[in-house]
Amino acid sequence: MAASPRGHTINTIPTPALVLDAEKVRRNIERMAAYTKACGIANRPHTKTHKSLAIAGLQLAAGAKGLTVAKVGEAEVFARAFGDREPDILVAYPTVDPARTIRLAALARCGTIRVAIDTPEAIAALSAAASAAGTTLGILCDLDVGSGRTGVPTTDRLVALAAATARSPGLRLDGIFYYPGHVTVLPANQGEPLAAVAAMLQEAIDAFDAQGLCREIVSGGSTPTAFQSHHIREGTEIRPGTCVYNDLNIVRGGFGSLDDCAAQVICTVVSDAVANQVILDGGSKTLTSDRCGPAPESGHGLIVEYPDAFIGKLTEEHAQVDIRRCLARPRVGERVTVIPNHICPVVNLHDTAWWWEADGSLQVLPIDARGRLS
Amino acid sequence: MAASPRGHTINTIPTPALVLDAEKVRRNIERMAAYTKACGIANRPHTKTHKSLAIAGLQLAAGAKGLTVAKVGEAEVFARAFGDREPDILVAYPTVDPARTIRLAALARCGTIRVAIDTPEAIAALSAAASAAGTTLGILCDLDVGSGRTGVPTTDRLVALAAATARSPGLRLDGIFYYPGHVTVLPANQGEPLAAVAAMLQEAIDAFDAQGLCREIVSGGSTPTAFQSHHIREGTEIRPGTCVYNDLNIVRGGFGSLDDCAAQVICTVVSDAVANQVILDGGSKTLTSDRCGPAPESGHGLIVEYPDAFIGKLTEEHAQVDIRRCLARPRVGERVTVIPNHICPVVNLHDTAWWWEADGSLQVLPIDARGRLS
Repeated sequence: MAASPRGHTINTIPTPALVLDAEKVRRNIERMAAYTKACGIANRPHTKTHKSLAIAGLQLAAGAKGLTVAKVGEAEVFARAFGDREPDILVAYPTVDPARTIRLAALARCGTIRVAIDTPEAIAALSAAASAAGTTLGILCDLDVGSGRTGVPTTDRLVALAAATARSPGLRLDGIFYYPGHVTVLPANQGEPLAAVAAMLQEAIDAFDAQGLCREIVSGGSTPTAFQSHHIREGTEIRPGTCVYNDLNIVRGGFGSLDDCAAQVICTVVSDAVANQVILDGGSKTLTSDRCGPAPESGHGLIVEYPDAFIGKLTEEHAQVDIRRCLARPRVGERVTVIPNHICPVVNLHDTAWWWEADGSLQVLPIDARGRLS
Repeated sequence: MAASPRGHTINTIPTPALVLDAEKVRRNIERMAAYTKACGIANRPHTKTHKSLAIAGLQLAAGAKGLTVAKVGEAEVFARAFGDREPDILVAYPTVDPARTIRLAALARCGTIRVAIDTPEAIAALSAAASAAGTTLGILCDLDVGSGRTGVPTTDRLVALAAATARSPGLRLDGIFYYPGHVTVLPANQGEPLAAVAAMLQEAIDAFDAQGLCREIVSGGSTPTAFQSHHIREGTEIRPGTCVYNDLNIVRGGFGSLDDCAAQVICTVVSDAVANQVILDGGSKTLTSDRCGPAPESGHGLIVEYPDAFIGKLTEEHAQVDIRRCLARPRVGERVTVIPNHICPVVNLHDTAWWWEADGSLQVLPIDARGRLS
């Protein structure tokens, strides 16, 4: 797992510290591996959550077919995660400018690189770059199934993108991409929105088949819907990210428990000078300003040791914690454990995490792809 | 200014890119230097905004007395900013745990290190560390003048902290610290809250004098109040941070103009597949989720070329921009300029910035203290 423990214990590491509970990380990885195997769907974890070569290695060892990234800089990092295997990476992000397409086309020399696209401009740019490099990029055409972020809204436009891809040099049409990020209701109530997603995908598949367009891959996913993927039989692979660590978005959305949260931020109480309040040494530069999606007014994270405390306000380096409802009062100098609202951007704020085994041992885990923005 | 231009122009740098307009940065630095000189108050800029040794060097060359940091890791970086001068750094943050106090005490070997404290625990911890290291740490006692974040609320408690400091080995009482972060109304209306702050400080100064306690330094500041500092005659120095770059918080609060915003994020339009919307390649991992303080519903930044566009939603790598009110439609592949809501945490997401001179030349500026959380 890299680097040296520097003689630290969990009680002496400098705070704020991002700590990964090794057992829980392994359990979360194994659970997703077992689920995708059971329903015969490929697992292509999104690395945006952990940004770690070591964690990607665990996911691949557990049977992941390949990896998902958002940015080209992440693809360049994670090409190194495959060891003896040929890299197999999906860039789940529209890639339209030469600063990116040229790098991707070059990366395709060392393995299979696919890109999700939703505009003719992306097709033209990727085709030009791959042609110039003499490589081939796989293309998935992005269908908006309701999240309204990227993807074309109709089968007709999807087929037009696919047909344009199929006739573009340097590109290989591989199928369909979708992102059901809008489906965040409780699992028991997902039947209807998931059925609507499935119907849109089936219509697209039928249209691809009628035109003889390749749809070997139908790639979806997102953590909230991940364990409902067997309800979308049209899908061939999923790209869950957050479930490797989980966070309060997952817990308060009803998609996991606190015990599933494998990543935590250890903070120190640094002040109690203001009445009814303590200050933690983790503010928005440590925990981000992301609110909890399912409970926007629930504060900026949960303090495990003081569940009645309320992290009401973050400034850059201070968390202002209202302790009026707490039975016990946190002491200055005491360390507490914060479960963040949204773990993915939190990880991206930390250069390293501590990999914490059940026996108490610690190792430094680099966040290899932190800050790869382009 | 460091590093190589790599043959890039402003139109070819990979996006999202943090760009610093060199002329505006210099102008902002000179304006604050001239103001503080004119009113006879020391300028100790807070480096949390730029986290850059090069920018700190410009501030010191313009006459800054010393530098302010929040975290010990930042102090360790900025000790290198002083060149031939002896480092003079204020840690504007309560420092209570051995992981920090030991490092600070060691750092005091190479220059003047002061710490703002607000608890007896901090005094004890810093005294123990400085005594063990054989160094001396300067102490400012933190008075809460209304922001309710740190600082003791009464003169009596402030005097008690100061007296405890004065009798603690390894510590040197240097004066009073305050943070008027709650005063964010328009300059024309600041008279009353600033008068209240001044009255609290005068009461504290009188009490210090009555007890023979040193109050050589009375350190305040924050960008919104910075240019009103002459109304607080009790203050001897200010610690403005944001004004080196400025942002929408400053502009929409009425404390500066768009033309004063020296830092911008260049983004590329990567999708227009969804109606009435374009996607930029800068999401919360580029711009943060910080809302605009004075206008929380104004979106996640301003697009200079399309002021009628509304950045309504950020996910990690996508900005969803509503373009319904725009006269012209941004094209896929086009680059746009985003002024962020809150520049300080944005800078902390970027490993480097581009230093952009009026002649078009570019240099890579490292964000030296990025991610120094502890």
